[in-house]
Amino acid sequence: MSERDQFRAWQSITTRWDDNDQYGHVNNAKFYEFIDSAVNSHLIHMGALDPAESPIIGLVVESGCRYHAPIRYPEPVEVGIAVEKIGTSSVTYRAGVFVKGHAKAAATGHFAHVYVDRVTRRPTPLPDRLRDVVSALT
Amino acid sequence: MSERDQFRAWQSITTRWDDNDQYGHVNNAKFYEFIDSAVNSHLIHMGALDPAESPIIGLVVESGCRYHAPIRYPEPVEVGIAVEKIGTSSVTYRAGVFVKGHAKAAATGHFAHVYVDRVTRRPTPLPDRLRDVVSALT
Amino acid sequence: MSERDQFRAWQSITTRWDDNDQYGHVNNAKFYEFIDSAVNSHLIHMGALDPAESPIIGLVVESGCRYHAPIRYPEPVEVGIAVEKIGTSSVTYRAGVFVKGHAKAAATGHFAHVYVDRVTRRPTPLPDRLRDVVSALT
Amino acid sequence: MSERDQFRAWQSITTRWDDNDQYGHVNNAKFYEFIDSAVNSHLIHMGALDPAESPIIGLVVESGCRYHAPIRYPEPVEVGIAVEKIGTSSVTYRAGVFVKGHAKAAATGHFAHVYVDRVTRRPTPLPDRLRDVVSALT
Repeated sequence: MSERDQFRAWQSITTRWDDNDQYGHVNNAKFYEFIDSAVNSHLIHMGALDPAESPIIGLVVESGCRYHAPIRYPEPVEVGIAVEKIGTSSVTYRAGVFVKGHAKAAATGHFAHVYVDRVTRRPTPLPDRLRDVVSALT
Repeated sequence: MSERDQFRAWQSITTRWDDNDQYGHVNNAKFYEFIDSAVNSHLIHMGALDPAESPIIGLVVESGCRYHAPIRYPEPVEVGIAVEKIGTSSVTYRAGVFVKGHAKAAATGHFAHVYVDRVTRRPTPLPDRLRDVVSALT
Repeated sequence: MSERDQFRAWQSITTRWDDNDQYGHVNNAKFYEFIDSAVNSHLIHMGALDPAESPIIGLVVESGCRYHAPIRYPEPVEVGIAVEKIGTSSVTYRAGVFVKGHAKAAATGHFAHVYVDRVTRRPTPLPDRLRDVVSALT
Repeated sequence: MSERDQFRAWQSITTRWDDNDQYGHVNNAKFYEFIDSAVNSHLIHMGALDPAESPIIGLVVESGCRYHAPIRYPEPVEVGIAVEKIGTSSVTYRAGVFVKGHAKAAATGHFAHVYVDRVTRRPTPLPDRLRDVVSALT
């Protein structure tokens, strides 16, 4: 099975000059920007999140990444995401960061959101639309 | 006159591993992060701005920077700021980014805020407290 | 004349979750990342620069930007670049940052590179290939 | 036992305006910048790494973080680091990111470097000085 088959939705992301650190490759922290951006873009495009207005928002409570191969600006990347676990108020994603067109991931990660009330920041059950959108990624 | 004498308030800022780009020095865009952070920290510490609550907020409408010498992580920097011009709704700053302890600036810049209503984003006269705080930097 | 007609080469750039600052729009410093990335991508794709190997490299000595309208992640942007001035060792660009498909720029900027020897960091005349590539952008 | 007692070396890091994302707190990816910066600063200050010259360099092969509480610019942070495991060519760190003066960590993470030859990027045994410096953090 191709590594790409493990993911259910994809976002293309362009790398930037300053993503490359002193060692000439994309800095490790940037991969989390890619994964965060891919997850939220998907939720926004699917109508499951409005970062400026939604009454509940997703806070990252855990993340992790394994790095397999370097990525170098100006190579574009493709981020694949899928949902591993859906709780009452939480969603855990897995993600793969691929150089555009590559079969093998440069990095694989995970990422857990807990949904909270925007104002009180107390955990809140997932709204129906969000639950439907993330269920489609399992 | 020392270059440092041109500035009225100072913020110390630590550099980060990923500030250094592929050429081994702090990337040009990071200097704007430093200046923006120095200006806003001063306003917050002086009680002239609460980024989460203030009814008016400052939007950057113009910025510029000249780069004289490289800075390299892990060197810490000191950012000096002063106010060049105060308008009805706007404040223009000049800033110098110095390697800690250096007499000459690694970069000098400017930075203009226009204050707007947080919700409507329409220009709004500077509140008294803000006007007092920035007047003290001229 | 459309604002877009002022530019000679274009790069599409995706915005990221963390580009939006506390005010819910792309932070001012990020526009410099966009412009820097657009300029260098063009030079790399045209064979005028290899950031890891070229004997000479371009250092930013001046930059500036005027902000006309907000950009908000996840909106993608298009960066137009053109060359304003070519010196013995330097190239000055103008740039426009547009929300994808918009006729009017969200921001317009400029950006000057001085080319230096990678090791000595002393100014060096532009190599022929680079001079040809930037001349085509005037 | 205080959470702070788990760490052997400390770095103070200033937060920046653009560290706060749209939700008004430091973005999750920034915590990795903090940890990476704290680890490398320590190695550089102790003479165990020269990022521009060392014949071997440390590449991040794995990282992870759990987020317990928000941090908000302009709060400064203190990053504690300690070494969990030393292999032939690798070092695994644990890290805690604390708001300055707080007893409890806002986030706890881990971070594994594999040391490779700068040119060939093949794993290489830790040099003696580096081994001594990281051993002192266990």
